[in-house]
Amino acid sequence: MEKARSWYKMGKIIFVLGGARSGKSTYAVEFAKGIQKSVAFVATCLALDEEMKKRIELHIKKRPAGWETFEEPKDVSALLERKGSQFDLIIIDCLTLLISNLISDGLMDEDIEDKINKMIKVLKLNKCESIIVSNEVGLGIVPDNELARRFRDLAGKLNQMIGAQADEVVFMVSGIPLKLKGGECE
Amino acid sequence: MEKARSWYKMGKIIFVLGGARSGKSTYAVEFAKGIQKSVAFVATCLALDEEMKKRIELHIKKRPAGWETFEEPKDVSALLERKGSQFDLIIIDCLTLLISNLISDGLMDEDIEDKINKMIKVLKLNKCESIIVSNEVGLGIVPDNELARRFRDLAGKLNQMIGAQADEVVFMVSGIPLKLKGGECE
Amino acid sequence: MEKARSWYKMGKIIFVLGGARSGKSTYAVEFAKGIQKSVAFVATCLALDEEMKKRIELHIKKRPAGWETFEEPKDVSALLERKGSQFDLIIIDCLTLLISNLISDGLMDEDIEDKINKMIKVLKLNKCESIIVSNEVGLGIVPDNELARRFRDLAGKLNQMIGAQADEVVFMVSGIPLKLKGGECE
Repeated sequence: MEKARSWYKMGKIIFVLGGARSGKSTYAVEFAKGIQKSVAFVATCLALDEEMKKRIELHIKKRPAGWETFEEPKDVSALLERKGSQFDLIIIDCLTLLISNLISDGLMDEDIEDKINKMIKVLKLNKCESIIVSNEVGLGIVPDNELARRFRDLAGKLNQMIGAQADEVVFMVSGIPLKLKGGECE
Repeated sequence: MEKARSWYKMGKIIFVLGGARSGKSTYAVEFAKGIQKSVAFVATCLALDEEMKKRIELHIKKRPAGWETFEEPKDVSALLERKGSQFDLIIIDCLTLLISNLISDGLMDEDIEDKINKMIKVLKLNKCESIIVSNEVGLGIVPDNELARRFRDLAGKLNQMIGAQADEVVFMVSGIPLKLKGGECE
Repeated sequence: MEKARSWYKMGKIIFVLGGARSGKSTYAVEFAKGIQKSVAFVATCLALDEEMKKRIELHIKKRPAGWETFEEPKDVSALLERKGSQFDLIIIDCLTLLISNLISDGLMDEDIEDKINKMIKVLKLNKCESIIVSNEVGLGIVPDNELARRFRDLAGKLNQMIGAQADEVVFMVSGIPLKLKGGECE
């Protein structure tokens, strides 16, 4: 785990990418704890079933009591425009669930891309630092299911877009961060 | 993205590996643009449905007009033997589709391995540089489907074989190249 | 491939992680050959079908004749307590099959976690070095199947736990080792 900083950097975007249960959220949370400033946690998940509810509760327990949590499954940009300037650091966890929610809502790929692009613009304009958590989902066999293929393509495309815009990119493997961009050893 | 070179290296093989929509083809194309010499693009995909046709068209638009494109879904070695010496750089995009096409054609694993081994030999004999693009497909759950397991095993085996033969190996994650072999920081 | 050592380190744990057919077992075996001391190979797989039997036979052929092989699909800790101190190096191949066998046996997640934790404790107490091989399975689309999701979550959690405890962590991609932890370039 990277050494904690006691400062934050205005408009900086850190992109934390990895597989399921690779330690992405834990990395983001531990990193943010080191900032010791006001932190907002934007949860994009919808607690639709018991499996999801349990996972959410587990995640909440890991966060410091002083942090503010927002549950925003769809319109993260609007939330960031309203609230973003009140925090030093904002964690968005996670991009892939946000994309999944927007697909379920019936949006077309182009509209989803516009929404995520707008979110990045708002984050860059904000005076806070941000951490975006996302799943890498394209390293298995091509899914049988057309919807899964569409999701996989769109998530990959948007991960690339954020990877290009981010100041730092970290790939998590078994809880170990591998810096892909923005580190001292780049 | 690595700085463009204005030269190419005879017989050199660069292996670009990654998940779906990880920026593999874009990396290969951008790299080849820097060479500024005669480039051939060998597309191994068969446009069997609309989804595939759209993807192919998108890819073609990203390539310079001066490049020559060959659609060769199966016998890449024979194509390379006929045409390879006419180009400074050849991009083969991608290995996993080539394997998939040969499986669909009814070939046994051993015959497919022989074909890919022969392709590597021809590439090494050629006086051109080459970039082979391939999917990493083994980082998800074991597929239910026996054919998918066979494909996954064979692709993994041949990826390893090419990884061992290549001069450079690049793993793409969210559009960011991670050099696994052959870089200065090796 | 890392240079062979002619010595081993007491209680040291090397964690070799990767996708299917990424060269994990080969890496572990080649590494152990360099130790040139007494080596035990703990195979956790059950040869339930022809596909599995063939794969096991292929793996056995790659190992030196002098090594001792133990087939232990479930209680690796007990085996290590009985036999561990007789060897300089023990390879456990692989963690994910062990987890899968314990799930099939009807164990709850907590009990499986306890078992793997105990295994790590025994390995640390042993005077031998050990290599644990495991699959990274979380980098594809979320599986439809609830059991597959449970397995994926548990494997990810335990991979993280071992990643945290291990002295070295190596991520295999197409047969090429990428050191994530414990190397000179850390």
